[in-house]
Amino acid sequence: MKQGDAPLYQALQNWKKKSVHSFHVPGHKNGTVFPTFAQKEFQRLLQIDATELTGLDDLHDPADAIYKAQQLASDYYKVQATYFLVNGSTVGNLAMILGSCNEGDTVLVQRNAHKSIFHGLELANVKPVFLSPFIDKEAQVAVGLTEETVKEALKAYPNTKAIILSNPNYYGMTVDLTNIINLAHAAYIPVLVDEAHGAHFGYGSPFPVSAALKGADVVVQSAHKTLPAMTMGSFLHFNSKLIRKEKIISYLKMLQSSSPSYPIMASLDLARYYLSQLSKEQVKKIIIQINQFREELNEIESIRVLPASSYYELDPLKVTIQTACELNGFQIQERLEHMGIYTELADPQNVLFVLPLAEISERKQITGKIKEALSNGRLVRRPIVPVEAITHTDYTELVFPYKKLKQFNKKVVSLHEAEGFIAAEAVVPYPPGIPFLMAGEKIKQEHIKRLSAIIKEGIRLQGGEYIQQQKIYVYDYKGE
Amino acid sequence: MKQGDAPLYQALQNWKKKSVHSFHVPGHKNGTVFPTFAQKEFQRLLQIDATELTGLDDLHDPADAIYKAQQLASDYYKVQATYFLVNGSTVGNLAMILGSCNEGDTVLVQRNAHKSIFHGLELANVKPVFLSPFIDKEAQVAVGLTEETVKEALKAYPNTKAIILSNPNYYGMTVDLTNIINLAHAAYIPVLVDEAHGAHFGYGSPFPVSAALKGADVVVQSAHKTLPAMTMGSFLHFNSKLIRKEKIISYLKMLQSSSPSYPIMASLDLARYYLSQLSKEQVKKIIIQINQFREELNEIESIRVLPASSYYELDPLKVTIQTACELNGFQIQERLEHMGIYTELADPQNVLFVLPLAEISERKQITGKIKEALSNGRLVRRPIVPVEAITHTDYTELVFPYKKLKQFNKKVVSLHEAEGFIAAEAVVPYPPGIPFLMAGEKIKQEHIKRLSAIIKEGIRLQGGEYIQQQKIYVYDYKGE
Repeated sequence: MKQGDAPLYQALQNWKKKSVHSFHVPGHKNGTVFPTFAQKEFQRLLQIDATELTGLDDLHDPADAIYKAQQLASDYYKVQATYFLVNGSTVGNLAMILGSCNEGDTVLVQRNAHKSIFHGLELANVKPVFLSPFIDKEAQVAVGLTEETVKEALKAYPNTKAIILSNPNYYGMTVDLTNIINLAHAAYIPVLVDEAHGAHFGYGSPFPVSAALKGADVVVQSAHKTLPAMTMGSFLHFNSKLIRKEKIISYLKMLQSSSPSYPIMASLDLARYYLSQLSKEQVKKIIIQINQFREELNEIESIRVLPASSYYELDPLKVTIQTACELNGFQIQERLEHMGIYTELADPQNVLFVLPLAEISERKQITGKIKEALSNGRLVRRPIVPVEAITHTDYTELVFPYKKLKQFNKKVVSLHEAEGFIAAEAVVPYPPGIPFLMAGEKIKQEHIKRLSAIIKEGIRLQGGEYIQQQKIYVYDYKGE
Repeated sequence: MKQGDAPLYQALQNWKKKSVHSFHVPGHKNGTVFPTFAQKEFQRLLQIDATELTGLDDLHDPADAIYKAQQLASDYYKVQATYFLVNGSTVGNLAMILGSCNEGDTVLVQRNAHKSIFHGLELANVKPVFLSPFIDKEAQVAVGLTEETVKEALKAYPNTKAIILSNPNYYGMTVDLTNIINLAHAAYIPVLVDEAHGAHFGYGSPFPVSAALKGADVVVQSAHKTLPAMTMGSFLHFNSKLIRKEKIISYLKMLQSSSPSYPIMASLDLARYYLSQLSKEQVKKIIIQINQFREELNEIESIRVLPASSYYELDPLKVTIQTACELNGFQIQERLEHMGIYTELADPQNVLFVLPLAEISERKQITGKIKEALSNGRLVRRPIVPVEAITHTDYTELVFPYKKLKQFNKKVVSLHEAEGFIAAEAVVPYPPGIPFLMAGEKIKQEHIKRLSAIIKEGIRLQGGEYIQQQKIYVYDYKGE
């Protein structure tokens, strides 16, 4: 087996040739039973939407094609073991936490984490201490933890059992974790990293270095985000001397479908293949194109391209444009969509482009369209007025353990009367999926003010059935 | 909206027309960035492998196309609410249990359940009481619970908080749950049903009636098993006055990818469409064909088709052939695969065919091939010798609660010295995925004897890293 192979994809090809008559699940019978009008999209793929048949191995007990495909991935990423995930980085984060922590453990958690990290903490019934990241003033975006923050927290919580980090952030801002990992390992504390946005970091320069190569114990990557895997295809990399991989595996078996999708698994094999086969020459061309793209965007008066910072490394595949006119980020995004240009996310200030790991086809035409969308008489350049940053105290703990919280009843109250209550739901602007309030956290006046503003600005919120009506679920308990 | 619509599929079509340039995840950029040799299978589908973009709604907060698609499904299945699942019936079973039970609750559980049910019990930290199903003597297969078993158990465990059933079994044997559900509801106990193999039961006659229509509180169905959904596509139907759907929803949000697969969700929309559009005339033709298929198979001397029984209703889509010669089920399955005929599962006696919910194309040729594969001079008919059935006492409890079990260390011991230990892993012949031993159960001489036989017979086993070497993980604790 070499990196130029794709053993799982190949196994499906071999099986497809042999399997003429399907008397097994799935019910679409290799794509032959399906609504006729939809066959044009589905039929070819359904021919490999197989199940655990002879020659196709078993994700939950891999010994053949899936074993080989995972082996090639772990070789490529230089880790002890790689596991294919079919339920996204969500299940990777859950299994990473449940598999590394025990009930009641104190764990340090970077606050601007994806909600799946918070769900993992709750399912594991650990005692989280949330650490505040530093904020990039230009983008008004939370980045990562400083070494200082972690050092102080380890002093304050000497009983810490794990550190859970999220890096890079959604905008590709990547903190060097070397020192934090060394600090933790000196105290025999494992470091778990949600690296969802960094599946291509395995390539090395010119991309940032993966946390796995910096010594992190477990690293979860969304192969579907920056590599050409199907949505829900992710990797969990295990590279630890401090934790047992068997416990993580047991949670992956529990939390992932017992009928995992073969197209998604094959696309993970192909994503690793794609990355491993990218020549230095091709990557050089990609980077040249990205720089041209950035320059062309910077020529547009009503926006500016967010520059790099000395505080972090910027992933070249992420390009953020910031408004410099009366349009907010959402309005800019909407104008681009009218031109057929769909971006990853908007916030009040910014619009994020996730670039392909390939040359941008029709780059000139695209930047021309963007120029057209954002250049008309009314759009005058104006100075950036920094919005008020969300501030947190350095450490936040839950008011009560998750288990005690579960015993309270929940009720809905108006935001304006929510002060002092404990939030009973996470409120998550999505994307980027970072909880603004978490279940278990006390609601302060500052939260209410900011949340009202978020709702008025029309930011998409997950959770919070009544949140658009300025109402929130709280536990029926009001502290002193 | 009417059943002849497919709103989510349609939304993806509309979006595809508008989205020309992708600067968002997934990294395959609407299928344009992908290994060239694999594009023939993937490209068309990747054009709708989208994410939460404008017009495409959000599974975790549905308000538009996904909301409508789920609404059409709940209308069709005549339930209060239907939720699309992208992580298989596995996640449905987990959320159903976690969302309906509290830690320490006594729950009655049908023993021949899928492993995801047992995982759900463990994650929820409930106190399970396992109830033995009756065995079909002809097929040597576990079917379902009798009303008597449940009645006695409710007397023995008056504090029961939920009953968890699995119906139909893998072979399509379907028990009428009406009386069991009525018994439970009379005591205000909710009934949760894993109906993974019965997604087509929503159609009604000539198929068995869905547990949802019999009054079950939550019903989980694998739409990918008998309907034309992609693998991992399932439904969770909620239809209860006894439990709160909000808690189930919150677990679905926790346990499913925050980037759910649009092709899988669209295929659920299309699966409901397909079922709703099947005319009585078409179904009549399907049933006629199935009967012809059964008759043609019955003409083969070396096998016989498993007949219906008076103890249960048989799903017409499941046809089980039983060996009547010196070949075992696995050998029959292998011979059929050489002919390009792939079946669902084999056990020592039986081979299971899962038929399409459509006319069988080339039926005559297929039965001809089966005849050819199984008819040669050496294959003489012989009488069925029933194998020893797995017996269990009526009720089995765990030796210790899940939490206490977790505190023990695990070790590997040889099967022949495992008697009296508590199993630390489930041993699951797969398919059909029914645990033979569960973590937490005491290992008896009978288990060892039978497990050795299973391994020798070459039945595929999940779990049990060392089980093929006749070794098993046990807790490092030996009781009296």
